[in-house]
Amino acid sequence: MLTKAAIQRLRSLREKKHRTELGLFVVEGEKVVGELIAAKFAFTEIYATPAWTGPRTAAVTEEEMARASHFPTPSSVLAVGKINPTPLPAGGLARGLTLALDGVQDPGNVGTLLRIADWFALDRVVLSPDCADLFSQKVINASMGSFARVTVHTADLAAALAGLPATTPVLGCDLEGRDVHTLPALRDAVIVIGSEGRGLSPAVKAKLTDSVTIPRYGGAESLNAGIAAAIVCDNLRRAQA
Amino acid sequence: MLTKAAIQRLRSLREKKHRTELGLFVVEGEKVVGELIAAKFAFTEIYATPAWTGPRTAAVTEEEMARASHFPTPSSVLAVGKINPTPLPAGGLARGLTLALDGVQDPGNVGTLLRIADWFALDRVVLSPDCADLFSQKVINASMGSFARVTVHTADLAAALAGLPATTPVLGCDLEGRDVHTLPALRDAVIVIGSEGRGLSPAVKAKLTDSVTIPRYGGAESLNAGIAAAIVCDNLRRAQA
Repeated sequence: MLTKAAIQRLRSLREKKHRTELGLFVVEGEKVVGELIAAKFAFTEIYATPAWTGPRTAAVTEEEMARASHFPTPSSVLAVGKINPTPLPAGGLARGLTLALDGVQDPGNVGTLLRIADWFALDRVVLSPDCADLFSQKVINASMGSFARVTVHTADLAAALAGLPATTPVLGCDLEGRDVHTLPALRDAVIVIGSEGRGLSPAVKAKLTDSVTIPRYGGAESLNAGIAAAIVCDNLRRAQA
Repeated sequence: MLTKAAIQRLRSLREKKHRTELGLFVVEGEKVVGELIAAKFAFTEIYATPAWTGPRTAAVTEEEMARASHFPTPSSVLAVGKINPTPLPAGGLARGLTLALDGVQDPGNVGTLLRIADWFALDRVVLSPDCADLFSQKVINASMGSFARVTVHTADLAAALAGLPATTPVLGCDLEGRDVHTLPALRDAVIVIGSEGRGLSPAVKAKLTDSVTIPRYGGAESLNAGIAAAIVCDNLRRAQA
């Protein structure tokens, strides 16, 4: 049984403010909870109605679930995880491949970009503080389980890039720049993706060592952030092969 | 001024049934109407409140717009276009590059795929009849203007593929298949994208000449339809260069 206070606590985690305060986040739904358990994410609490066939820490009734849920149509499972801040170590971007998101505000895009980083086995993703909140259900859902497999840091991007050796390529995606098909094999690189509406912030733009362009053959003015990032990653991996 | 009947007619175009009956569709919003006008799409009617600065065929009040609009928050412009069916000519897929969508039901995905076909200047897109409706506002919005630039047919895919010469490559995206990085230069090819949930239908799958795979390095189980299509198109264009 869930007390009124327990329900209130779970519901409060809808808001980033309360997630930060309590250091906890919630995910709901058979599919996403199942994906994260399969990816070995260690939930601290799992509330489930009899319809849920996976592990649980507490049984709840459908009525309790309806009151605790963040959604108008609750599912059979609601899981709570700890927010473990992973501070970016000094010189943290110097080695390996990093996807850096500069103000990407759409939660679906952030989730998709985590999935891309996972597919291409990038070493880490760095979010600027004004990106969509990593611990919102929309981001976690859109990542299709990649949330649990990718190392993600939140950091001031311009400052993090300023600490890099001058030899580390910092690549921005732009409509004018070096043809992505001519990228050399890079062991270390940062790929920077800007916000949907505003592009790269001036402070981050000032830190780029190169712009890369995906050759365009037709009339579309742009590609979305996820597609641009995926094509750059595919070409980077192809160059390494 | 809009009569009650005129408002009723515009509102009825929310439903595919009425769009098909009248051979008309509606788009609303400054951004998308502006994109389509810029792409030289010839709207037959444009209703606008004083806030709209573009062309119009009739001035309406905000109250009239609120009643005609398909959305709870109307914009300053509502445009009507004709549905011009473009039947697939016999042997229509034999020449050039075709993107074929087999049951892609998410309107956002269909719109994104039109944008990709536009960016890479594919010769046409073919939708199976069970794809999201091309003339729904969600598809048109997601295409970011590409709706007006790409040639789109709706056709029974398996039948259209059956009419192809045996030499035309029909490529399915799959988790096992030929590495997309090894694609040769293809002047003519059909790239087939399956539904989000079910993949390719058996009848279409039977017509593939080859499966292509995007090499995976990490843990994500799949990439979404738009990203897979974009990476295949980028590699096809790269091979041609």
